[in-house]
Parts: sequence; C-alpha cells; structure tokens
Amino acid sequence: MTTFASIASQLEGQAIELPSWAFGNSGTRFKVFATPGTPRTIQEKLADAAQVHGVTGLAPKVALHIPWDKVEDYSALRDFAGDLGVALGTINSNTFQDDVYKFGSLTHTDAAVRQRAIDHHFECIDIMHATGSQDLKIWLADGTNYPGQGDMRGRQDRLADSLGQIYARLGSEQRLVLEYKFFEPAFYHTDVPDWGTSYAQVAALGDKAMVCLDTGHHAPGTNIEFIVMQLLRLGKLGSFDFNSRFYADDDLIVGAADPFQLFRIMVEVVRGGGYGPNSPVAFMLDQCHNVEDKIPGQIRSVLNVQEMTARALLVDREALDAAQTAGDVLGANGILMDAFYTDVRGDLAAWREGRGLPADPMAAYAASGYQAQIAAERVGGTQSSWGA
Amino acid sequence: MTTFASIASQLEGQAIELPSWAFGNSGTRFKVFATPGTPRTIQEKLADAAQVHGVTGLAPKVALHIPWDKVEDYSALRDFAGDLGVALGTINSNTFQDDVYKFGSLTHTDAAVRQRAIDHHFECIDIMHATGSQDLKIWLADGTNYPGQGDMRGRQDRLADSLGQIYARLGSEQRLVLEYKFFEPAFYHTDVPDWGTSYAQVAALGDKAMVCLDTGHHAPGTNIEFIVMQLLRLGKLGSFDFNSRFYADDDLIVGAADPFQLFRIMVEVVRGGGYGPNSPVAFMLDQCHNVEDKIPGQIRSVLNVQEMTARALLVDREALDAAQTAGDVLGANGILMDAFYTDVRGDLAAWREGRGLPADPMAAYAASGYQAQIAAERVGGTQSSWGA
Amino acid sequence: MTTFASIASQLEGQAIELPSWAFGNSGTRFKVFATPGTPRTIQEKLADAAQVHGVTGLAPKVALHIPWDKVEDYSALRDFAGDLGVALGTINSNTFQDDVYKFGSLTHTDAAVRQRAIDHHFECIDIMHATGSQDLKIWLADGTNYPGQGDMRGRQDRLADSLGQIYARLGSEQRLVLEYKFFEPAFYHTDVPDWGTSYAQVAALGDKAMVCLDTGHHAPGTNIEFIVMQLLRLGKLGSFDFNSRFYADDDLIVGAADPFQLFRIMVEVVRGGGYGPNSPVAFMLDQCHNVEDKIPGQIRSVLNVQEMTARALLVDREALDAAQTAGDVLGANGILMDAFYTDVRGDLAAWREGRGLPADPMAAYAASGYQAQIAAERVGGTQSSWGA
Amino acid sequence: MTTFASIASQLEGQAIELPSWAFGNSGTRFKVFATPGTPRTIQEKLADAAQVHGVTGLAPKVALHIPWDKVEDYSALRDFAGDLGVALGTINSNTFQDDVYKFGSLTHTDAAVRQRAIDHHFECIDIMHATGSQDLKIWLADGTNYPGQGDMRGRQDRLADSLGQIYARLGSEQRLVLEYKFFEPAFYHTDVPDWGTSYAQVAALGDKAMVCLDTGHHAPGTNIEFIVMQLLRLGKLGSFDFNSRFYADDDLIVGAADPFQLFRIMVEVVRGGGYGPNSPVAFMLDQCHNVEDKIPGQIRSVLNVQEMTARALLVDREALDAAQTAGDVLGANGILMDAFYTDVRGDLAAWREGRGLPADPMAAYAASGYQAQIAAERVGGTQSSWGA
Repeated sequence: MTTFASIASQLEGQAIELPSWAFGNSGTRFKVFATPGTPRTIQEKLADAAQVHGVTGLAPKVALHIPWDKVEDYSALRDFAGDLGVALGTINSNTFQDDVYKFGSLTHTDAAVRQRAIDHHFECIDIMHATGSQDLKIWLADGTNYPGQGDMRGRQDRLADSLGQIYARLGSEQRLVLEYKFFEPAFYHTDVPDWGTSYAQVAALGDKAMVCLDTGHHAPGTNIEFIVMQLLRLGKLGSFDFNSRFYADDDLIVGAADPFQLFRIMVEVVRGGGYGPNSPVAFMLDQCHNVEDKIPGQIRSVLNVQEMTARALLVDREALDAAQTAGDVLGANGILMDAFYTDVRGDLAAWREGRGLPADPMAAYAASGYQAQIAAERVGGTQSSWGA
Repeated sequence: MTTFASIASQLEGQAIELPSWAFGNSGTRFKVFATPGTPRTIQEKLADAAQVHGVTGLAPKVALHIPWDKVEDYSALRDFAGDLGVALGTINSNTFQDDVYKFGSLTHTDAAVRQRAIDHHFECIDIMHATGSQDLKIWLADGTNYPGQGDMRGRQDRLADSLGQIYARLGSEQRLVLEYKFFEPAFYHTDVPDWGTSYAQVAALGDKAMVCLDTGHHAPGTNIEFIVMQLLRLGKLGSFDFNSRFYADDDLIVGAADPFQLFRIMVEVVRGGGYGPNSPVAFMLDQCHNVEDKIPGQIRSVLNVQEMTARALLVDREALDAAQTAGDVLGANGILMDAFYTDVRGDLAAWREGRGLPADPMAAYAASGYQAQIAAERVGGTQSSWGA
Repeated sequence: MTTFASIASQLEGQAIELPSWAFGNSGTRFKVFATPGTPRTIQEKLADAAQVHGVTGLAPKVALHIPWDKVEDYSALRDFAGDLGVALGTINSNTFQDDVYKFGSLTHTDAAVRQRAIDHHFECIDIMHATGSQDLKIWLADGTNYPGQGDMRGRQDRLADSLGQIYARLGSEQRLVLEYKFFEPAFYHTDVPDWGTSYAQVAALGDKAMVCLDTGHHAPGTNIEFIVMQLLRLGKLGSFDFNSRFYADDDLIVGAADPFQLFRIMVEVVRGGGYGPNSPVAFMLDQCHNVEDKIPGQIRSVLNVQEMTARALLVDREALDAAQTAGDVLGANGILMDAFYTDVRGDLAAWREGRGLPADPMAAYAASGYQAQIAAERVGGTQSSWGA
Repeated sequence: MTTFASIASQLEGQAIELPSWAFGNSGTRFKVFATPGTPRTIQEKLADAAQVHGVTGLAPKVALHIPWDKVEDYSALRDFAGDLGVALGTINSNTFQDDVYKFGSLTHTDAAVRQRAIDHHFECIDIMHATGSQDLKIWLADGTNYPGQGDMRGRQDRLADSLGQIYARLGSEQRLVLEYKFFEPAFYHTDVPDWGTSYAQVAALGDKAMVCLDTGHHAPGTNIEFIVMQLLRLGKLGSFDFNSRFYADDDLIVGAADPFQLFRIMVEVVRGGGYGPNSPVAFMLDQCHNVEDKIPGQIRSVLNVQEMTARALLVDREALDAAQTAGDVLGANGILMDAFYTDVRGDLAAWREGRGLPADPMAAYAASGYQAQIAAERVGGTQSSWGA
C-alpha cells in the first residue's frame, strides 16, 4: 500500500486555473439569482480569485473571457493580478453572444460574419501577448436546432479553414485548445460535438493545437477517463475544464456529482503522464455557482481536485499491474478502491499547515470576514454575470 | 386499409392550445436572440396567436402565464381575445422567477415563502374565474443542485400539503394539472421528476387533479407512449405540453425531432380514449422558438399534430388486433407503419379548403404580409420574452 | 460529527439476502464463461452462500429461483440450509424461459398461456409455504420489440387481472413484490417499465403487495434515491435488488460503478425508516459475476452495502437539517460528504473481530481453501448457470 | 420539388449486404427462442439469403462470420452461392467466444493469447482470398467490467500493434474495417468505444483501413449522421452495419425504431458522396430477429433502406442550399421534411415491377411457400444461432 508520505512531494506545484466567470452570477434560462458582493469588474473577480489561492495555494492563475473581461490596459491588469498573488491565464474567446452569430461564427456561410469571428480570435491572440497567456481556448456554440437548418459538412469545412487562419496567427509559445461539447446551446447538432471531431481538427492544424476536455460535455454513459487515456496517448490532451453534472452540462462543483469518476479521471491522468511539472495539460475549472456561494464554491472545487489527485497518486501501481496481468478482477479493482476509499483529508490538512496554509481552507475563508466585506462594499454598479 | 375519407370527420373540432410565451423571444442561458415584431404585450401575443388559428383552424385557445400576462381587467382581455376569434385557455402559474424562490416554492422550508407560493396559486384561480379558464397548470421548478442541499422527503410532504390547499380552492368546474419534469432548472433532484410522482400527488388530491405530460420532460430512452397509455388507463391524463427534443428539454417544434414518436403517442391517445369531443385531455404546445420565426413555428407545430393525428386515425385497428393476437410481429408492425408512411398532406390540404381554410397555411401566412406589418409597427417598448 | 461508536449498534442485525443464481455461471448474449467449482445443484449453491455468511455475518438468507432451484422436498432443503447456518428467502418466479412465453406471460392474449403463468405463481406460493419464505418476487420479462407488436393497454389490463389472481392466493404473512425494469429483454416496451407502473399495480392489489426496486433498472440520469424516498413515503417499498451498472442492466457488484450513488440510496433508506428491525424493506443482491470469482464477488458486495450503511448512519442529521433550513448549500452538502469520505473500513474490521468474525473477510475466504476444494470436487455434471 | 422519376436511375445498383447470422436463431442473455426452418448450415443460410435477394433485387451479397460459417472448401461455397444468385461478402472475425479470450484478444496482456487472436485474423484473410471478399471486418468484444480490471492504455497500445500486424497481411485489394461499440459485452470500458478511437487506430494503419459504423453502437442522444458526415469528410467511412435500437444494442430492423434517423443518415451519405457506384462505403445489415420471422425480417430491412434512400435522393438540394444560406430555418427544415414525408412506396413498387421484381416483396415471399418448405425440410440437426 502506497503511503501519503511517499506521494506528498508530488502534490507540490499542483495548479488549477480559476475561471473569472465563476465569481459572477450565473443561472439557467429560467432565472439568474443575484448575490450580495458579486464582482462588477474583472479587478474584483481577480480579488475574489486571490482569496481562493490564498487559503488553498492551489489556484495561482485566473482564466479570462473576452469580451467579458476586456480592459484598456492588460499590462496594468497583469500587474494588478500579480500584486494579488495570481497570474492571468487562458484566454477564452466568445462568439456566441452577438446577434450576428445567431446561425454560426467560425462556421457561418456568410464570409463577413466568419471573418468577424476570426478577427475576434486575432484580438484574443493580441491580448494573450499582453497578458502573457499561453492558451487560446475556443469553445464554439455553433450548431443547429433543426435537421436541414444547416449543411453540417460545409460548416465543418469552413471551421477547418477558420481554425487554420487563427492557428497561423499564434505565437511560437502559444497554443490553441479546441473544446468539444455534446449539445447546448444548439440542440440538433453542434459543430464540435465530440473528442473525435476536436482531435481531427487539431491534428490537421499542427503541434500547437490541442483538445480541451470539459468533463460535463459528454453523452450519458460515456467513459470519460477512456478519452483522457486516448488523448494523452495521442499527445493531444491540452487542457481540462473541470466541473460535474448529473444530466446535462450542469457546471456543478467538480467531484460533486460523481466523486469516483473524478478519481478515475485523475488515475488516468497520472497513468498517462498528464500530471506533474513536465505535463502539457492545463487544469482549469469551468463551473457556474447558481445557488451556492461562489468563492467557497471555488475553494471546495480546487480542494476536491487536490484530494482526488492524492488518492490517484496513492494507487499501488505495481500491485495493480500484477493483479491486472494475473486476470485477478476483484484484486485489481480492490487495489483501485483502496486508494479511493482512503480518507486523505487529515493528511492534506497537515500538509497544508506545513506550508503555512490553513488546515481547513473553507473555515479559514468563512472566518476571514471577506464575504461580509464585499457584500458591504460592492453596492451599485452592474454585477457581472456568466454570459454577460 | 382505413381511408382518409373514413376518418376525416374525426378531425373536426381538433383543438391545440397555444402558449402565449411562444410568441415572445426565448433562448438558452447563453443568449436570447431578439426578433423584429416580437410582441410587447399580451394583446399583441393574442393577435399573433389569432394568426395561427386563422390559417389552420386548429388553435382556438391561448394559454396564459401569470405574472407574465397579468392585466388589470381580465374580462376585457377575454373580450379582446374573443374579437380576434380565440379564447383564453389554461392558466400557468410561475414560482421560479422571484428571488425568494431560490430554494423552493411550494416545497420551501420557510412557511412564509411557501404561503406566498400558495397565495400566487390562489390568485391564479381568481384569474381563472375571470378568464373562464378550466385548468390551472402547475409546473414546479423546485429542486436542488447538490446532494444534501435539501431534504427530499420533507419537501415532498410539504408539496402535498401545499397542493392540498390549492386544490381546495378550485371551483367545481376547474382542474389542477401537475406537470412533471426530469431535470432543469434543478440539476440534482426535482420535486416532481416523473409521472409516478405526479400521479401519486394528484391521486391523493381528488378527481379534479390530473397529470400534465410534457413530451420533453423524460429521461433518454423513455417510452412516452407507454406513459400516455398508463395515465389514460388510470384516468389521470389531464393535458399534454407538446414539443420535441433531441437531448434535454429543447422545446423544439413538436414532431421535429422524432416524428415517429409523435405518431406513436397519438396512436395511444386514440387507443385510450384521449381524443375526441368527450376526452378530458387538453392538448397544448409548450415550445420556444429560439432561432426560427415564431408565428410560422406555431403554425408548423399545430399542423404537425394534425397530420400525426390523421395518421394515427388511419391505423387499421381491426387488422392490427388480429395480427397482435396471432403473434404476427412483422404484420402488426407493418400495419402501424402503413399508417405512418401514408402521406396525408394532400388530403389535409383538400380538407382545409373544404372548410374555407388555406390549403397551405404556411404559404398563406407568408403571403399575408402580417410579419412585415408587425416588424414595422412594434418598435419601441420591451419585447416580451420567455422567462420575462 | 457523528462517531462510529455511536452508530455501531445499528449495524447489528443487518441482513442482505443472496441470490442463488449469483453462484452459477452467467454472461452476456455473446458468451458465458465457465469457472471451475461452479455449483451444479441448489445444495451446492447454498453451501457457497454459507461461505459468504460465514466470513461476513451479513447474509443469513438465500433467495431461490423457480424452476432453477426446484427440488422434491423443500422441507429437507430448508433443513439442509439451516445446517449450513442460512435460511431460505425470497422465491423468484420465472416466466421468461419457456417457449410458450415468447410473446408474454401474465399479459399474454392467449388465456391458456396466461393461466399457465398464473399457475406457475401458485406453485411458487406453495413452495413459499414449504420454505417459510415471506416474499414472492415477480420480475416480468413481458414486453414487445416493435411498435404495434402488442396492445400495451390490453396487456396492462391483463397484467392487473393476473396479479389479482396471484395476490388472492397469498397467505396472510406472505407478500407479493413487483419489480420494474426499464428495458431488456424486450426492447420497445416492457410491461412494468418504471416505479410508477409497479406502484399503480400494487396499490390496486392491497397492503401485501409492494414494489421491488432493482438499482440497475432505470433510465440514464434517473435519481434513484428520490424513488427510494417516494416509495418509503408511500409505504410501498418492499425490497431492493442491489447491483450496479454503467450503462444497461450490467448486474455488477453493488457499489462498484458509483459508490456515491449507493451511499445516497442508503442515506434515503435510513432517512425514510427503511433500515432497522422494524423496516418492511428486504435487502437483496441481484448480480451476475461474469468475469470475477463468484463467492468473493458476493463477499465484496455485502461488505460494500455494510460500509455504505455505516457511512449513511454517520450523517449528522441534526447539523444537516440546520444547514438545509438555513439555505447553506455548501454546508449541507459538506455534511453529507463528510460521512461519505469517512474511511469506515478499519472500524468495521474491529467491529467484526469483536463478533468473532474475520477482520478481513476477503482474505479469510481466500485463505480458507474452499475455492480449491470445490474446484477439485465439483467435476462432472452440469454447472448451474444464470438463466438455466 | 424533386420527382421520383428524376431520381429513379440512382436506385439502380443499390446493394445491401446480408449477414449470414441473421438467419439463425438469436436472443438475449435470458432466452433464445427457436423457430422451425432455421438453417443448420451456411449453405442453408445462403439459400435463405437468396430468397431476400430474389424478391427485392437489393441483396446480392452475404457476409460470413468465422468460425460460425467455416467450411472445408470456400471455392465450392463461392460456387454454391453463385448458383443461388448471390456472392460471398465481408468476412467477420470472432474473438469473443473462446474461453481464452475472457480478458481480451487483440489487447490481451498474454502474448500467446494475443498471437492466437492475430492468427485468427490471418486465417480470415486467407479465407477472403478464397471467397473473393474485399473486407475484413473487426468488431472487438475486448473490454473490462470493473475499474482497475485492466490497464486501458496498455490495451490500446497492444491493439495498435495487433492491428498493424493484421493490416500488413492484407492483399492489395483488401481492406480492414474496424467497428466501434459504446458498450457490451464489456460494461465498464470497451477498447474501441467510439468513432474517434476507431478513426485514430485506422488512420495510423493506412489507406486500406477504414471505420465501420454500426448504427446501434452509440450513446443515447448521439447525432449519428454527424459522424457519417465527418467520416466521409475524413475519407474513412468504410462500411455500415445497419440496424436500429431504442436503448441498447437492440439489433432491431433498420429504420424500425426511428425512421427519421435513418433518413437523416441517408441524406448525409448522399451529401458526402457515400452513395453510388464510386463510393467506397459498403452497406450491410447487422440485425438479430429475436421474435420476428427472419427472412421476412431481412426483406423488410432492405426495403426500409431502399425507401429511405429514395427519400434522401428526393431532397431538393438546390432549394435546401438556398434556404440554409438565407438563414431560413423553417424553410430549410421544411424542404427536408417534404422529402421524408413523401410516400415513395407506390413508386418503388412500380419501379420493381419494371425490373421483373414483385411489387410487394413481403407478400411475394409469403406466397412463395418457402417458409413452409424449410420448416418441413429442416428437421433434425443443430439450428444455427447467433453466437454459435
């Protein structure tokens, strides 16, 4: 049995990027509930994100969404973040909220609309140079609601062309990560619905193009850790968007709906070389805290990832290999479950304290008074919102 | 083989209720696209609905949503509708858009919140008396996003109590129809997730309480026509909310995603006595036209229902019974498919013309100039929107 | 935080019934793999089951399947089991393996076939008197593969009639439990597809008729613990068939596919009064060990149920109620997760030792030499098989 | 509107390959029902297949399954088939029914087992030379039932190696088509679960390796026609296994569960160049007639494909393109639906008669007396069975 002590050093340096939009209000098509203290600016979002990093040491970067987080001076924003102890991370493009994109963006039949979407990505790349971001993440809302509404083949060809133009603009240290999504906001078809499509598209682009795997973007019953394995094997797993879901793209706290699935995912990440200082895989959250508090929601999330990473590292690989080779089904499964059922929370609390972090980050944040402070201070103005 | 002529008379009097909200803008959590000519008032929605009825003869009633369609004087609204050739139909309550309902309405732990939700339904019943509506439809957004967030049992008990109070307020000719929904907007659990729950709740209330079946509110793979059969058998099918879906609650045009499913549903409706002048079943649309034109979308929808009803009536029941009893699987299936594959559109066009209706309602509406007229006239003000 | 010591006494008396068929070979439609030592008789199955009970103390009863486990003298079988330290439990009927049932059994259009199926249940009731069994469990394979193949309504009516005749034959201490199943072996419709149908049928029968919930028999995304809650609330949860699944009715080891789901189910069982000496709920396994060893598979299964029961009992209900009432989403969820993440395995090992049971039942069985013994002894004859 | 006359010539030469195993008995893990007249030899299967071709003119080839259809002399078999008017088609390998494959075949950790599986494919290639078959179809049952049971990554690497060896053995005119399957018979993971995996594997092999798309092998909600489009675009759609399903891999008659889906698939086939004399796509059935008559089941199936092909060809592409480009959602969808709702059955009956085929193939077969003849003649011996 592997011990916590033997894997503790591997927990150093774990970093999970926070999405700026997780700190704004979010909701469903039915209702967005507002919360006191919700940020009104990207600076306030960064301040909130810094709280998460402050109590966990796990979240040194914040992903931006353009145009939601646009500012005049990105250099100043970079400094502002730096002063808070965090850095600016992945740049997320947005081609789903302008009226002109009603029938598509990078796939649109109208060359002018398509160019506008491409230009938006050029702008994002410019911002990346200013922010020092490595990754341009493209999640495409393009798709159709009715059979016949669009020509799926033509759209796919135009997508390839658009991506090619964007890819050509990347700097030498920059990457393009293409996210896939099974459904929503389009209902009949989405233009990048599965990992196969994302893979085929990025493989055609080149080495700097990778796949982004959002854990909530699959059909029911999909074995997600298999896809993790496959993309690592193919050298094309660029990043994770972590969250969890019961049915659709619920964007719940990662690990909340099915903790065992998160464990299995992390086991394959470790198995396939996706974890550690030399891994090309970026770990991000992509969540919406519709009914729960946002900052504690993010704290809970990064802790869940850390706890499952620890459990995944605890798997006794040698014993597992032996049991697998011997065809010992129950033995092999038992070795995996042993790691999953191990309660690592006490060890992690001690580990945190040894690094000057609070043993209980949730309690530390609650005791900090920050929530009351922002509720009091952030009055007036427009609260930021997921989707706005 | 049954002929169209022999079933034509059964198409008389078919009525599909239109939802007022189908004429407003709607969308996803990502974006609501606006359209020129979108109504700004319930009166404008009624005018649009009257267009649908005018070219199809199929949609003599319009369902209202409270508070979206609240007016000072319901008697005047009733007259206004009547002048347009339509009547006011089902009253839909709404307990999902006030901040106070964030954690529930009829199920809330806080007695004051719960009372407010009950009072809202009392108000709806008052409105029903003024509008002459028969049905109070309750779709409950109550539920939770995380395991442990709520006590499902306590919520169910409070729901029963709340419904009991509302039921007691119904007039002798009024009904309560309780809709169920598998998921959304709550992700972990919804308080009325399936027909079994709705049935158990309304069975406890009494004869005036029925189940509402929304065709988009089921788990993948669910045999919906079985539920239709069962609820008719139990005497508890009160109404349909028609729409179609590929994955979630897409609210697409009924029959668009799986026409054969709509056919099978109508076959069971006819088989179980749910169709015709003496049936207690109310047929309604509940759709959101996110990317398509709204009035033509509604025209297309009621035509789809009519076409599938005609096909369902064409099933040769006598031959089917014989094949079923004989264990002739392919024969029985073939009899059903014969009716489904029959192209009834020409016969229906002639049938319409015989009643002074346009042969091609879609073309007639397009030629009417109404769309251009409302686009020109309805400028300024706030466009109505699903969810607002 | 609730402690293990405070809940330990509630673990006394926990009993999980083993299915006799779990010890036979099983497989898929593609292949059944044979294993050395597989029982050839019901006596050998009972001997294997006694091994499970011997090392866990959790499995004092064995469910029989008729006709698979038919014997001449049930009184002798009862004594034989008693000598092994186990008792005979639920009687499972079988109307899916005779050629005559190709198109149905209790629902068949042919009165003679239907009578034969009813008579089979009468025989099962006679056997129950001889074995001292309390429950007659009916899982019905009836259904159709193609739309139109059968008349779903007529089938449902005949089912009600058949069940009524069977119910009338029950002794005063006997119960009928009706299992539902979403799909398989019928593909288009099954005659008891959901809890609502099973509930409506047993509610029409009377107090001695209850619902059996098989955890593998639901559509994707179904919230099973909600159904547990609802059936307990309605007083109609008769028994569980425990197993787990990733997609279809995989019949895997309970807790193997989604341990957190099993936990949530046990939480609702405890919450709703379904656990403990006065509960009417019978807990059974219904699994097929296709590729893993069968006796250790059963040991692992009952241990999984015990471990999750312990975790469910550890939930701090008082704190949970407070957090739920306060609308503290993360707090309430955290209280639940605290119990789930608690590693109870050490405490349970000690608890077992205190009762003269092995600390590690899996290891104890492996060390016992029983597997080698049966592999050597049980040569020749026909191995029993699930489905035969 | 496109007319039948204008597309009739494109129906010439349509060919759908029949699977030899469709004529044998098949069933579920619960029961296989036997039927009078079921073939006992491959010769009898070919005779049955020839009946299907005889009345439809659509099924000139029969796919074989090795070892189920092994014979001493393939040249003689080829002549035998030729005399019946049919040819031998795709060779299907089988590595799922030997005990040695319990834990895998082409992916097995044991080099000896893996070699045996590879050798089996070498044998299949030898047979292909003798039969004149073009395609070696590999459907792999490899997978695991429990997390941890196997090392998914190692298995994928070994699969790549095994496929490489098999590919190297192909003749210059031969192809390898790799089928993917979402689940079953393995429950936790399958080694080729999705089109992405199949595509990545065959892309690594070379031009003679293609993907086989079985319409029943996807997760719920999957847009299959999108995959058809994508594989055609990537030049890697090798063949179809046609069937239909409601939930799992039901292997029902193609078009039976969702006729509109079959239509959409054929629309994409035509759109992407997958139909016609120069297409590389092979069309096959892969069905199991568990409860319906087998020969009529096959006749019904090929007719369904033909009817949907005709409807797909009827789509007015020019008008559709215009509506799509104009963003006319309802117009574009309406053009598609016009083709789908067109009743082509009368035109096809006339078309058949013009070619000396019976207008109603189902009736012609029923009237032929063949069924009674084989029921009388084929007595004794072992009926062939799917899976045996």
